[in-house]
Amino acid sequence: MRKRKVAVLGATGTVGQRFIGLLADHPWFEITALTTSDAKAGRRYGDVAPWHWPGGMPDIAREMKLAPTTDDLDAEICFSALPSEAAAQHEAALAKTGHHVFSNVKTHRMDDDVPLIIAEVNPEHADALSVQRQRRKWTGSIVTNGNCSAIGFALAAAPLHRSFGIERAVVTTMQALSGAGYPGVPSLDALDNVVPYIAEEEEKMQLETRKFLGRWDGRRFVDADFAFSAHCNRVSVRDGHTEAVSLTLRGRPSLADAADAMRAFRGRPQELDLPTAPARPIVLRDEQDRPQPVLDRDVERGMAAVVGRLREDPVLGIKYVVLTHNTIRGAAGASVLNAELLAAEGCLGS
Amino acid sequence: MRKRKVAVLGATGTVGQRFIGLLADHPWFEITALTTSDAKAGRRYGDVAPWHWPGGMPDIAREMKLAPTTDDLDAEICFSALPSEAAAQHEAALAKTGHHVFSNVKTHRMDDDVPLIIAEVNPEHADALSVQRQRRKWTGSIVTNGNCSAIGFALAAAPLHRSFGIERAVVTTMQALSGAGYPGVPSLDALDNVVPYIAEEEEKMQLETRKFLGRWDGRRFVDADFAFSAHCNRVSVRDGHTEAVSLTLRGRPSLADAADAMRAFRGRPQELDLPTAPARPIVLRDEQDRPQPVLDRDVERGMAAVVGRLREDPVLGIKYVVLTHNTIRGAAGASVLNAELLAAEGCLGS
Amino acid sequence: MRKRKVAVLGATGTVGQRFIGLLADHPWFEITALTTSDAKAGRRYGDVAPWHWPGGMPDIAREMKLAPTTDDLDAEICFSALPSEAAAQHEAALAKTGHHVFSNVKTHRMDDDVPLIIAEVNPEHADALSVQRQRRKWTGSIVTNGNCSAIGFALAAAPLHRSFGIERAVVTTMQALSGAGYPGVPSLDALDNVVPYIAEEEEKMQLETRKFLGRWDGRRFVDADFAFSAHCNRVSVRDGHTEAVSLTLRGRPSLADAADAMRAFRGRPQELDLPTAPARPIVLRDEQDRPQPVLDRDVERGMAAVVGRLREDPVLGIKYVVLTHNTIRGAAGASVLNAELLAAEGCLGS
Amino acid sequence: MRKRKVAVLGATGTVGQRFIGLLADHPWFEITALTTSDAKAGRRYGDVAPWHWPGGMPDIAREMKLAPTTDDLDAEICFSALPSEAAAQHEAALAKTGHHVFSNVKTHRMDDDVPLIIAEVNPEHADALSVQRQRRKWTGSIVTNGNCSAIGFALAAAPLHRSFGIERAVVTTMQALSGAGYPGVPSLDALDNVVPYIAEEEEKMQLETRKFLGRWDGRRFVDADFAFSAHCNRVSVRDGHTEAVSLTLRGRPSLADAADAMRAFRGRPQELDLPTAPARPIVLRDEQDRPQPVLDRDVERGMAAVVGRLREDPVLGIKYVVLTHNTIRGAAGASVLNAELLAAEGCLGS
Repeated sequence: MRKRKVAVLGATGTVGQRFIGLLADHPWFEITALTTSDAKAGRRYGDVAPWHWPGGMPDIAREMKLAPTTDDLDAEICFSALPSEAAAQHEAALAKTGHHVFSNVKTHRMDDDVPLIIAEVNPEHADALSVQRQRRKWTGSIVTNGNCSAIGFALAAAPLHRSFGIERAVVTTMQALSGAGYPGVPSLDALDNVVPYIAEEEEKMQLETRKFLGRWDGRRFVDADFAFSAHCNRVSVRDGHTEAVSLTLRGRPSLADAADAMRAFRGRPQELDLPTAPARPIVLRDEQDRPQPVLDRDVERGMAAVVGRLREDPVLGIKYVVLTHNTIRGAAGASVLNAELLAAEGCLGS
Repeated sequence: MRKRKVAVLGATGTVGQRFIGLLADHPWFEITALTTSDAKAGRRYGDVAPWHWPGGMPDIAREMKLAPTTDDLDAEICFSALPSEAAAQHEAALAKTGHHVFSNVKTHRMDDDVPLIIAEVNPEHADALSVQRQRRKWTGSIVTNGNCSAIGFALAAAPLHRSFGIERAVVTTMQALSGAGYPGVPSLDALDNVVPYIAEEEEKMQLETRKFLGRWDGRRFVDADFAFSAHCNRVSVRDGHTEAVSLTLRGRPSLADAADAMRAFRGRPQELDLPTAPARPIVLRDEQDRPQPVLDRDVERGMAAVVGRLREDPVLGIKYVVLTHNTIRGAAGASVLNAELLAAEGCLGS
Repeated sequence: MRKRKVAVLGATGTVGQRFIGLLADHPWFEITALTTSDAKAGRRYGDVAPWHWPGGMPDIAREMKLAPTTDDLDAEICFSALPSEAAAQHEAALAKTGHHVFSNVKTHRMDDDVPLIIAEVNPEHADALSVQRQRRKWTGSIVTNGNCSAIGFALAAAPLHRSFGIERAVVTTMQALSGAGYPGVPSLDALDNVVPYIAEEEEKMQLETRKFLGRWDGRRFVDADFAFSAHCNRVSVRDGHTEAVSLTLRGRPSLADAADAMRAFRGRPQELDLPTAPARPIVLRDEQDRPQPVLDRDVERGMAAVVGRLREDPVLGIKYVVLTHNTIRGAAGASVLNAELLAAEGCLGS
Repeated sequence: MRKRKVAVLGATGTVGQRFIGLLADHPWFEITALTTSDAKAGRRYGDVAPWHWPGGMPDIAREMKLAPTTDDLDAEICFSALPSEAAAQHEAALAKTGHHVFSNVKTHRMDDDVPLIIAEVNPEHADALSVQRQRRKWTGSIVTNGNCSAIGFALAAAPLHRSFGIERAVVTTMQALSGAGYPGVPSLDALDNVVPYIAEEEEKMQLETRKFLGRWDGRRFVDADFAFSAHCNRVSVRDGHTEAVSLTLRGRPSLADAADAMRAFRGRPQELDLPTAPARPIVLRDEQDRPQPVLDRDVERGMAAVVGRLREDPVLGIKYVVLTHNTIRGAAGASVLNAELLAAEGCLGS
């Protein structure tokens, strides 16, 4: 397959850096542009961005000149980690001029012709792109991935929803600091503390989860129909969102049947053997004290949902814990996998 | 009131130390014995115990000789922070020989003639002591306080249960490291991590909560009848258990009515103005990001349940966050308050 | 003594809040003004400032209106926690109009007629105020306290310098997060990390330490003459700067003599029994693993230097560890103690 | 090269696990035995050891049966992470029966015929093995690597010592929690804290550093002759020891010359291109705020000393910060590299 030119929009932030890390040696994609706010444009990437991840800045990024975010970027695919105002300004404009935008930002997630995709969960939502292009007169497109907590919940719950149907869900998250970007959470709020609130997070989880698990009926998205309640908390963890999930499933399946559904779960990325696809999208562990962020967040290179403590819930029926790497599976990795999926399916042109 | 002689059983551990801190300048109680395992008995307290709390070891403790735990302790009241095997061996024996044991240990909590008391919530359970003494032929008694997480939940939920009735509760805890004692949780498990499991904790919460909110019918305890589900997690916090609570209440009260019930809640400790009683057993905060352990755990000298984020729950009806100081309100402080209550009510002799 | 009116300049930051905490119930001082940047002026303090310290906001502050920082503040004494540009603009102007400014900011620390005072160490530097007032034609004055790390070093080393004379000092600091204010250090830089650099900190320590331990000769400050090297590091601690100190002392005193000098050390604040004075300005501990921030930073209400591990240094002669509470002894508490000292000595008018 | 059979002694601890991680896919070595205390012998490794490192337990280890540590192990090379009493009992016995023991334990480090080797620094100390074997009548051998802090210091200082000669060194360490093993440091001692003491650490650094930088004169080790002072501290970091180093060098070289010496430094492992050798044993960084554990500990797969902040020291002459990964470069990785070196040099038989 020929290499496609890709740009990272908002390349200096924490998610932008994760994009660069995932794309630096990508077999299908080649970074041709890194964009930033106008103030930093023109400078060498290596001179601007303090690199926040272990392993160091990839050489290919270090030497690139930062570009402003403009409509005429020389790239077929744009991975967007823009701040939300910049996303509102640029993502649609880029799609209009023929770019395929894979956005990590909330701006267009709930638009009624923009797919919100987890590649293993609802790849058929990409069918909405033909409506999107026609209605908006775009030659490009916008595909979004969701909020990091919503992705973690929906990926692990997808096989349960598919096999049995979710009726009700109560979820408490314990979210990592990296989810707030950099500088993000002040250390005086993080050390020896829990902050029981993350702005807009509970609302995003409630809305996006139902879109992820819903369907595209050919003209519009039909949300999955279940009651959802989220408690979102920030804890002193670098990477990896832990979620305590209680569910009611239709038909009240046994724990063994639920476990089988999770273990057997595979999607299009696994069928197509996409470069960023985890071999197992859900890793189910039997130990009573797993998953733990420090031990499990890097399983499957950060692309798996690691589930543990599957057991009966005396109130709702079934409960478990799920961990996902929030800046990989919950952000940059999800976008890259979506782009691989659509490229492989022929949705991005040849 | 004359000062009563009190002993701290298991005085070198973290809860034993909290007992000493709370009793060192107590207006009603005077420490006359500190006990420990036989191996350390006979040594000066200050030479044995590395002191784990800010403020330093009270002078009165430093100079005392550690005693073995025996049935003939010279003390009317024994505060027990014994390890569970030692508690099984000594607590009943001490009660038999006339001591009033206030135990922080699980050994006797669920016995059918042993009261499990939160002083503001179910002081009338002390009526069971007459049955206890008669049946067991004890001249002393055993009163227990509960597991730290169960106390936090039950204290905040008590006015809601009393006013409306709890039907169902789903709770996720984020518990402090001090709850596991010392050395307790290894730092490699705590740093940059969440451990989604605490041995026996979910079971204790489910059992004890129903006993706390139940009643004594003159002959036996009748548990409160509601479904309860707990997810218990350890997070990187020194002191203060945070709990995300979702409830269904009978009659579906408004948020305002629920808030009023919490704010208005007072109990016997407040009526009697007991030395360790908080002025407000429940402190309800309006800010959207409170309570937080580092900011709120010491409110009312660690004796309040601090509640925040009271809001509607799309699944269960109502939800909120409650924080309690686990080694004060959830352990040593709870026992001391129970002893004050029973002393003031005349249940410990004159 | 009549109560003097005091203002806190820059009252919403972390040091401003410490000032309020220390002054809320002060026997000699009464808060009459809290100032802030113009943007927040006019608003109620309780509506503006998220309070960062346990124990909650004092009621007296909550209800006050924030004032802009102007020259005509109704206060005799101004405690300044202003950002440095604002300090440059306002501190001298306030001194000119008759206010006694006790500044926690570096702006005027090294001015050749501004005393840099640790109340126990160099109270006689206040004699410079007559020169200051005369030369600058001020009716008020400026007194500064130093950088938090410099105060910690100088307080513990003062009796050694006084008794023996310091020839050389090599110091490595492990500094708390609160020293950087709020939001200050990003949590992603603090968690599981050490940052081996703090802007300007090593330079401040080297300059200020020599001024603290120097003398006022009637016309000018004469610095103490010794070589000083600092390595400054940020570690994951909320409050309390730990410093590993290696010294060469003139005359090569024994460890016992050095210990005696530290233990015996008292200053004017102790003689005058000032309200904020610690009973022991230096607390020397014998245990081999103390001082520790979490256990020792609150000794003497945060106003002591806690010293431990006094032992021989194979290279320089003597070494030890010193801990001071950086926002109390190293900042707000130091200023308040300086103001008490000058008030008691009659330097602030009657 | 044929694969050599290797055993890991004390395979369940944190260093034992690092050995397994480094050896699982090693091109020259093949794990044939994992030993443990008798109590666990006979059990499957995967059933016994909670795995403490990200990435999960290598499959080859999971299925192995744990063996007791005995003299007749079927392995040419034994990597020892035994507790010190077990090391005293077994290491010499294994060497006597023909095993080449690479020990990570202090037991034999200072023996006068046992080399203490950092492969890049003093590979010629291996010449002592002929004396060792002759004198002790061993067919095998013991080679030790040093304490983790001593290795970090000596590796970075080696080119300075070689080029200029060290006269005096004052070092303050900020050491990671993993250095104390598992369970190791209690979380209540680590969170929000610094512990300014590590048992025996300062003594080990002082002794071992001089042996590392000394020479083997054909009959005995001649220590490097310089004064050394260490302050050792434990900080809240998972992996990576940070050391603040002040040095006096003979001839007072310029900073540029010192930097050149560090940058140019290569040793036998680089010449021989050993599998575990870092390309650059010392990585010198120019940024003013590096190295940092979270960003730099994994450079060169954890086998480099990362140095930064090289600058003048007003007291001793030169100062800098060095970071090394304590359980890789400072422990298991150092032993594996030593074994590779001696295998490549023909010291372990053909």
